[in-house]
Amino acid sequence: MPALHSIRAQFGESQPLAGIRIAACLHVTAETAALVRTLASGGAEVRLCASNPLSTQDDVVASLSEHDGIAVFARRGVDRKTYYEHIDESLAHAPHILMDDGADLARLIHTKRRDLLDQVIGGTEETTTGVVRLRSMARESVLAFPVIAVNQARTKHHFDNRYGTGQSVIDGVLRATNRLIAGSVFVVAGYGWCGRGVAMRAAGMGAQVVVTEVDPLRGLEALMEGYRVMPIAEAAPIGDFFCTVTGNARVIGEAEFLAMKNGAIVCNAGHFDVELDVETLGNLAEDRKTVREGVDEFRLNNGKSIFLLGGGRLVNLATAEGHPPDIMDLSFANQALSVKHLMYNADSLEVGVLAVPEEIDRQVAALKLDGLGIHIDQLTADQQRYMTSWQLGT
Amino acid sequence: MPALHSIRAQFGESQPLAGIRIAACLHVTAETAALVRTLASGGAEVRLCASNPLSTQDDVVASLSEHDGIAVFARRGVDRKTYYEHIDESLAHAPHILMDDGADLARLIHTKRRDLLDQVIGGTEETTTGVVRLRSMARESVLAFPVIAVNQARTKHHFDNRYGTGQSVIDGVLRATNRLIAGSVFVVAGYGWCGRGVAMRAAGMGAQVVVTEVDPLRGLEALMEGYRVMPIAEAAPIGDFFCTVTGNARVIGEAEFLAMKNGAIVCNAGHFDVELDVETLGNLAEDRKTVREGVDEFRLNNGKSIFLLGGGRLVNLATAEGHPPDIMDLSFANQALSVKHLMYNADSLEVGVLAVPEEIDRQVAALKLDGLGIHIDQLTADQQRYMTSWQLGT
Amino acid sequence: MPALHSIRAQFGESQPLAGIRIAACLHVTAETAALVRTLASGGAEVRLCASNPLSTQDDVVASLSEHDGIAVFARRGVDRKTYYEHIDESLAHAPHILMDDGADLARLIHTKRRDLLDQVIGGTEETTTGVVRLRSMARESVLAFPVIAVNQARTKHHFDNRYGTGQSVIDGVLRATNRLIAGSVFVVAGYGWCGRGVAMRAAGMGAQVVVTEVDPLRGLEALMEGYRVMPIAEAAPIGDFFCTVTGNARVIGEAEFLAMKNGAIVCNAGHFDVELDVETLGNLAEDRKTVREGVDEFRLNNGKSIFLLGGGRLVNLATAEGHPPDIMDLSFANQALSVKHLMYNADSLEVGVLAVPEEIDRQVAALKLDGLGIHIDQLTADQQRYMTSWQLGT
Amino acid sequence: MPALHSIRAQFGESQPLAGIRIAACLHVTAETAALVRTLASGGAEVRLCASNPLSTQDDVVASLSEHDGIAVFARRGVDRKTYYEHIDESLAHAPHILMDDGADLARLIHTKRRDLLDQVIGGTEETTTGVVRLRSMARESVLAFPVIAVNQARTKHHFDNRYGTGQSVIDGVLRATNRLIAGSVFVVAGYGWCGRGVAMRAAGMGAQVVVTEVDPLRGLEALMEGYRVMPIAEAAPIGDFFCTVTGNARVIGEAEFLAMKNGAIVCNAGHFDVELDVETLGNLAEDRKTVREGVDEFRLNNGKSIFLLGGGRLVNLATAEGHPPDIMDLSFANQALSVKHLMYNADSLEVGVLAVPEEIDRQVAALKLDGLGIHIDQLTADQQRYMTSWQLGT
Repeated sequence: MPALHSIRAQFGESQPLAGIRIAACLHVTAETAALVRTLASGGAEVRLCASNPLSTQDDVVASLSEHDGIAVFARRGVDRKTYYEHIDESLAHAPHILMDDGADLARLIHTKRRDLLDQVIGGTEETTTGVVRLRSMARESVLAFPVIAVNQARTKHHFDNRYGTGQSVIDGVLRATNRLIAGSVFVVAGYGWCGRGVAMRAAGMGAQVVVTEVDPLRGLEALMEGYRVMPIAEAAPIGDFFCTVTGNARVIGEAEFLAMKNGAIVCNAGHFDVELDVETLGNLAEDRKTVREGVDEFRLNNGKSIFLLGGGRLVNLATAEGHPPDIMDLSFANQALSVKHLMYNADSLEVGVLAVPEEIDRQVAALKLDGLGIHIDQLTADQQRYMTSWQLGT
Repeated sequence: MPALHSIRAQFGESQPLAGIRIAACLHVTAETAALVRTLASGGAEVRLCASNPLSTQDDVVASLSEHDGIAVFARRGVDRKTYYEHIDESLAHAPHILMDDGADLARLIHTKRRDLLDQVIGGTEETTTGVVRLRSMARESVLAFPVIAVNQARTKHHFDNRYGTGQSVIDGVLRATNRLIAGSVFVVAGYGWCGRGVAMRAAGMGAQVVVTEVDPLRGLEALMEGYRVMPIAEAAPIGDFFCTVTGNARVIGEAEFLAMKNGAIVCNAGHFDVELDVETLGNLAEDRKTVREGVDEFRLNNGKSIFLLGGGRLVNLATAEGHPPDIMDLSFANQALSVKHLMYNADSLEVGVLAVPEEIDRQVAALKLDGLGIHIDQLTADQQRYMTSWQLGT
Repeated sequence: MPALHSIRAQFGESQPLAGIRIAACLHVTAETAALVRTLASGGAEVRLCASNPLSTQDDVVASLSEHDGIAVFARRGVDRKTYYEHIDESLAHAPHILMDDGADLARLIHTKRRDLLDQVIGGTEETTTGVVRLRSMARESVLAFPVIAVNQARTKHHFDNRYGTGQSVIDGVLRATNRLIAGSVFVVAGYGWCGRGVAMRAAGMGAQVVVTEVDPLRGLEALMEGYRVMPIAEAAPIGDFFCTVTGNARVIGEAEFLAMKNGAIVCNAGHFDVELDVETLGNLAEDRKTVREGVDEFRLNNGKSIFLLGGGRLVNLATAEGHPPDIMDLSFANQALSVKHLMYNADSLEVGVLAVPEEIDRQVAALKLDGLGIHIDQLTADQQRYMTSWQLGT
Repeated sequence: MPALHSIRAQFGESQPLAGIRIAACLHVTAETAALVRTLASGGAEVRLCASNPLSTQDDVVASLSEHDGIAVFARRGVDRKTYYEHIDESLAHAPHILMDDGADLARLIHTKRRDLLDQVIGGTEETTTGVVRLRSMARESVLAFPVIAVNQARTKHHFDNRYGTGQSVIDGVLRATNRLIAGSVFVVAGYGWCGRGVAMRAAGMGAQVVVTEVDPLRGLEALMEGYRVMPIAEAAPIGDFFCTVTGNARVIGEAEFLAMKNGAIVCNAGHFDVELDVETLGNLAEDRKTVREGVDEFRLNNGKSIFLLGGGRLVNLATAEGHPPDIMDLSFANQALSVKHLMYNADSLEVGVLAVPEEIDRQVAALKLDGLGIHIDQLTADQQRYMTSWQLGT
């Protein structure tokens, strides 16, 4: 993670976050630890909880607590009650800045903990799903501080959602099932940036890709890429693998489960575990058993079996290791620089969901290219003039 | 062109452009004729000139003049002087609306023909290059009316620049040269939407693709797609084919031409003929001859030959037929609906470069999907609520 | 064509074909001219006729006759009667060696011209279709001389059928129709080497590829490549483009034509014009007209139109220029060296369909790699020992 | 594994292997267990040892021993001495048929255990590497019985080597490293069927693929597929990932290790652990430590680190789970039917390396297609006549 590493070095020297309290609700992984250490090295007091109880790496929790003295409230596989208690505790130091992966902290502070709103300078949000929620809050004039949508940085969603999710979903499916993707029908529900990544990699492994969408523009684009596009009802009976990446709820439910082939493999990579209606799947099943690590077989009344990966939570975290560190480097470099930006521009930023400033985006890209040893061209003076002058003719 | 066709039917009935004078400077092709007829059927008085003298289809000129009574000022291969006279003439009826493909009309009316500025309501612009120019004009407070950047419509640049240019550049190269692309090194200068399309299709034909860029974000993205990324100086000696799609000037010049392999094939698909420094190539050559239709061999002093396609103008128009009609349908449906939008919102639109309204974009996509017989999903009420409500938790 | 060029130089010096009479029935193109000149430079007396009247390039005929003094019996677009007269004439000098592209000369000499069989040393055959026929002849003990199946050379069918046909079919479809391939359903009937090439390139242009096959092994392989596999009856109503490359007859007939979508585009690249049942298509049509060069519209009684490319003959020759010279170089280098091999081994070769000797195949590959400036590794002495010694353990 | 399953049912009824003793040296996995049970259900007495100590699944050993009463001599990670003792023991019942995965049993019986040669009917061989060895033995007239090269079955090498190895190498690399493949340079040494599979899938995950070869024909083919082709010496300093699949020894050695980038990841999928010169790598290293499961870091004297996966043994078995069962089904169906074929044709088969009979190949493909629910076309009577009749003209 060379980009984050170089930011950490700089933060260590200039202490830009001295005296700042941060609450972070993120997947608790080795990469997140690097981000938290970067923030701490800049002088911040960080409290960390998990944005998903299944993704927590307990050794990371231990290491952050013991070696770095950071307050971490997370443990893999905790129940729902403990999970929410952890989120509550991460706010206990009355943070100036909230770092979210799904808007959970933002929701909590705007509802049960409005008492803490006063000293909040701003927040950052890692996911599309969180951004959608925050925009709703802004639309309803509920949102009380500026939030930088890190997900909207080009160095984030052009890379993380597409190349990171794309690879890690394939990784999760292979680790969980060891099934052959070549020659299969791989259904991708949702053709946003994550869906593009999953579709691209499933095709790269030899699958026939089927895309389902609700947006005509995305549907048309998936078609032009050579994928089949159809409603989920038509896709259900022909798919061998299904992966939901819509950011929405109950994309695959009773009708689809009942229509599927015997042996269909179903997973989700769209943030929350609501995309697959797992409860209904359970109700439809005569029998449910774990047949491999991370793979539950649901034997339906119609005699067919459906295999659910990672319990319907994010498959790339549940049965693989999430985004490769190469990718998290980009996201978290944006996070670190965005926190600094919030702090230094506390007075001038508007309340609402804000874009990552383009200069941060470019700075991250430049740091990354450097690390990869890739050189590109520079505009000549002549070319710069051409680009900005409208008086030069044909 | 089903989308444009259905708009034409509607325009014929409701006459939304009655009494409006339009000057259009576009590639004069069969598809443009369909657009012009759509505008005329809506009641507009249209004068048409060519945005590129090499792309003019003389039979289209004849047909528009004779059967449709439209004033067309264009003839294939006219000299520079006549070409500019034609542009002048297209403004002679003091238009209300300007339709540009490279901002030529806008430039003319803001310089030599400022007398005509008064009655102009607004304009549309088809290309990225034109938009860059118009934005410069806006920045310098020169631009005097609103211009809708049709190129920025998702149904335009997601399809036209990528799938249209991608295919038609391959088509142009094959028609001109009949050379094998598989196993070759295909250098794409510029990784905007057009560059993506050309790179994708060159790879699809079996080439090793090399991308050159000035933007670190685009360079990083090309790399992640599996292409090689390097400065043009490194690409020059290894390329078999070169295609410029930067929208900038002198991307390939003396140093690159001298470094190329014997037999290198060079073309441009980036709007103007300035991307390749053809003049310098001529100066470097001991001998220049046309070896096939659209292919000029330059025998350099260093003993090597370079083959230039279509004289350095847009190869997909010069040696092929431009975008397939399936693609132009999307662009021109946006154009027609944008003209109507300009007219009906003349008072409220700000001066500047404006986006195509999202409702037009969706309307075009919907018309297209219908025509292709593709069905997609609709959000359920439950899902719509989920997308807009930030209070529903994990 | 560097490989053939270097063979020509060598033939010119050593005159290996002195006194040999050759009859060649090949597509009469610029590349064939280079082959014929190579043979002539080696001392052979060559008579050339066309294997397909639509592929004849009349300027090549003129040039070979006038400048090279070679007897050519071919003219573009001749009627069936003249075509067969030309084939007859190519045998008039009682050839020692027959060069076929579809076994037409072999068939003729084994039927009507058995009087000429005596002095025939052997033959070469360029196509899969021809090889199938010759094998039937051998099985029925009719074949009277050895024929080298040039098509079976790895440097032939690995390159010509796949990369050559793949690219040139796309080229032919684009030149004829200028239709967008991206987002279309492209049906490839037959998944031999040609079918693989067409499928690969159609997918590379953004199509959804559907493969139809009669061989379960090829069907399974197409599936594993990510294509849809189904019977032609299921493919007919969903295809936008159809290309037959089976080497068999009436692959697309009445039932399929009637089931197709309005606007379906149909072509053949499988050697003879029998793969599409054009006669039946004509009978089904109320009206037939040429709408672009090489494109005939058949308006069926069911109200739908089907567009036939190149009259159902090889689309890559009828509406494009056949294989790129880069590819023909490999085929024809095999041809030239095979003719020499026939001559020098006349006594020892068995009657039947023979493979190209592996040393010729390697020689051709070596000549080509040299020309492309590509270097590869050599086995070390240690590695050579490892490969040949079974006593070295794990 | 539907194909093998249906063979097992048939074997159970007809007992075709009654009284036959089989020694099998294969990767001891769940799929191999299914094969062994199929043979046993046909009446055979099977002794099983491991072809690779790292691939042994100890629970499979236990299950075969305890539930099926099969003599298994294998334990994961045994030392070299025990490994060879296990191979010895598998021959102790004086087998009629040998089943090999690398010709280890064949080598042993032709050297130290020639006393057992007499009652051997024949053998089967699963891998290309084994076939190369057996052919050497046949060439030197050492081989004493017929061996069916299962690897040469189209249903084997068209699927197992390409789609199986292709996917499982990616799986192994991802599980071991969790590194991003997109944007990396992935070097594939060897472009046989396995190499094609690895190259195809690495490209499908977004890598730039570099192929190294010693065979000019394969090199030319890799080039035409769009890969870069170069000597390993040129590839060494630019690769991020290296995978050897040559079937040869010391493909990557001292010079290459020293030339590599810091952080290069190196693995082997070419059968034996000799392709990477691991011993030399160890000698070059100042320090070696295991940094993740299956990943050893070698810190070289030049300051750079090289990461070796799976100790240089087959990465798809060492850090993943080998071929998906979907693929093994094809291989092992061929194995089972080949064993039966050996037995029923003991008298008539020639000594040497023999192909899988085509009727077995087709039977396996037919069983598989059935299981996948895929339908294909049948030749019409008319088409069958066309294919076999050479008298039907153009």
